[in-house]
Amino acid sequence: MKKISILGSTGSIGTQTLDVISHYPEQYTVEGLSGGHNIKLLAEQIRQFRPRKASVATKELAEQLSLEIPSDVKVYYGEEGLIEIAAGTDAEFVVTAVVGSQGLAPTIAAIEAGKQIGLANKETLVSAGHLVTGLANRRGVRLLPIDSEHSAIFQCLQGERQEQIHTITLTASGGSFRDRTRDELKHVTVEDALKHPNWAMGAKITIDSATMVNKGLEVIEAHWLFDLSYDQIEVLIHPESIIHSFVEFKDYSVIAQMGLPDMRVPIQYALTYPNRMKTPAGRLRLKDIGRLHFREMDFSRYPCLRMAFESGRIGGSMPTVYNAANEVAVERFLKGEISFLDIERVIEQVMAEHEPVAFPDLPAIFEIDKWARLAARNVMPQL
Amino acid sequence: MKKISILGSTGSIGTQTLDVISHYPEQYTVEGLSGGHNIKLLAEQIRQFRPRKASVATKELAEQLSLEIPSDVKVYYGEEGLIEIAAGTDAEFVVTAVVGSQGLAPTIAAIEAGKQIGLANKETLVSAGHLVTGLANRRGVRLLPIDSEHSAIFQCLQGERQEQIHTITLTASGGSFRDRTRDELKHVTVEDALKHPNWAMGAKITIDSATMVNKGLEVIEAHWLFDLSYDQIEVLIHPESIIHSFVEFKDYSVIAQMGLPDMRVPIQYALTYPNRMKTPAGRLRLKDIGRLHFREMDFSRYPCLRMAFESGRIGGSMPTVYNAANEVAVERFLKGEISFLDIERVIEQVMAEHEPVAFPDLPAIFEIDKWARLAARNVMPQL
Repeated sequence: MKKISILGSTGSIGTQTLDVISHYPEQYTVEGLSGGHNIKLLAEQIRQFRPRKASVATKELAEQLSLEIPSDVKVYYGEEGLIEIAAGTDAEFVVTAVVGSQGLAPTIAAIEAGKQIGLANKETLVSAGHLVTGLANRRGVRLLPIDSEHSAIFQCLQGERQEQIHTITLTASGGSFRDRTRDELKHVTVEDALKHPNWAMGAKITIDSATMVNKGLEVIEAHWLFDLSYDQIEVLIHPESIIHSFVEFKDYSVIAQMGLPDMRVPIQYALTYPNRMKTPAGRLRLKDIGRLHFREMDFSRYPCLRMAFESGRIGGSMPTVYNAANEVAVERFLKGEISFLDIERVIEQVMAEHEPVAFPDLPAIFEIDKWARLAARNVMPQL
Repeated sequence: MKKISILGSTGSIGTQTLDVISHYPEQYTVEGLSGGHNIKLLAEQIRQFRPRKASVATKELAEQLSLEIPSDVKVYYGEEGLIEIAAGTDAEFVVTAVVGSQGLAPTIAAIEAGKQIGLANKETLVSAGHLVTGLANRRGVRLLPIDSEHSAIFQCLQGERQEQIHTITLTASGGSFRDRTRDELKHVTVEDALKHPNWAMGAKITIDSATMVNKGLEVIEAHWLFDLSYDQIEVLIHPESIIHSFVEFKDYSVIAQMGLPDMRVPIQYALTYPNRMKTPAGRLRLKDIGRLHFREMDFSRYPCLRMAFESGRIGGSMPTVYNAANEVAVERFLKGEISFLDIERVIEQVMAEHEPVAFPDLPAIFEIDKWARLAARNVMPQL
């Protein structure tokens, strides 16, 4: 029995992780679940999977939750609660599926406690890649990617040596606004932005797909996960999301990972690695799909991706700022405070105001993250 | 320094193998070369690569060759000559790039001598898969595939376990007559048949691509190389030949190997395995290619592929017969004796006449091969 805790169990990745686990009840037990604000779903999950510990966003929610679940489940809340679920259970494997930089502290706590990580929280590596990869190495902890692109690269690298990589290519569907011009983007609504063509995902990541910030975060994450320079990381538009990403080796042989878009495959691979087991996913039948398309990534169409590469190349604290500014900008867009194209303006302005720090420690990262959020809140929308 | 011998050095795979070796003179020495009838090219190769031994088809050719090369190179001929190049040198790695079932005896000799094999001769496994794989296992000899499809599968399987394979798919360009109807095939000429859309290859294999016999031989070869049932092997039409083949695992994750069609990549991979080095091949740029197409394989359009699966499923001596009948049929087609569609008729009739033997030993295989050739010569062309 493999013991699992999930940070963010009520989100898209969290629920799919539990779906995978529910297919193999004899192989997995759930030790801890954290679920933010969705008490109703979390209570259901607790009744089904019977973790020993659970956590929610606030004290009030914790009290509400306690009334709805068996009394032997201990309930925590807030950042301390997340850390308890990450590091304070018997779990040997922690899935970090919370969204945003709130995932950083609990992920570090889990690594310090020697737990293997199923990494779905991009911001952990984006904000603190040098600290997190260093710590994971020292603790002998493996960071198993759950993102479909990074899982693809990870799968393509099985049996291969890192130094034989020439480049990797992350594929991008192009997001909800793939076929709109820059001019047409001026007046898109929140509703438009939330329609992703291939993947069913949460709101934040769907907006990040439309702005290509999501791919930018993936680029930075790949830099840390696979120890590659930014010159070795390419992005390609591939509208069908069938080729999830690929590795080009020194001999120009390319190994790609493919499949129907279904997050349960990379989630399960992280859980079963290095084994593979049957998934509830459908089979890829290329004869039915008929054709796959590819287009060059246009960095002027997607300035947020260009800025991600820039922040990564500058390094130090700049990716933290990139990510924090974006989180606030997306929040503001979803609230109707700023327009879609203002998202990139917010990021650009906050990055321009920031004096990067070369090797920030964790307190410095938190402080810079906080500063960037404040700065992002103060950027005025364009008229 | 890795010591190499090449059976069939003047053919398409042979010359490309030497091309690869010429890029890494500090890493490879050539111990033996066998070159059939093309004395002029073989003499050039000998002067450039300075093997200790060489072999040609006949005694007369051997005498001619001796006059044109340094006197310290020993010259052999005929089947014994092939075996000398395969097993009688200091080579640790033998590339078997002769065409047809003449490759069988020298390949077995090389395996018995404990040499690693770069396998480009399909008929070795098609005619005697049970004997060759058994012998290779006992001798601890690795059969490294050079065919682009099998090299692709082999690369996709690095770091993976055989029992986690669900299916493999060999891609097929569709050959020179991909876009012609069965009716249009009645009157195609030898010249038409020799135009392959993607790969520069020898005459026999180009015809085999047009009839889909080549893919049929690859299916049987894959059965032996990767220890798969025929139900686990699929074939897909992929006109661009960019995805060279792929593996579907139990979790429905698919790993594919891709690249521009250039045999020097799989040849070099077999030589450098498990390492990879820079090749003279071009880089695959999917953004420039734009799209990839896939079509279901039509077994009634390509009855030779259907018959390959049948012969494989029947097993025993039937694949030997399938292959031998095809070799003679192609020879007769190239000479203008029979029409293109007669090739499949010849195979079908000879297979129908054959009473399969379950576990033929080597003498039985040679005898059945001989019988099938005779039978194939006697099939009358259709008027």
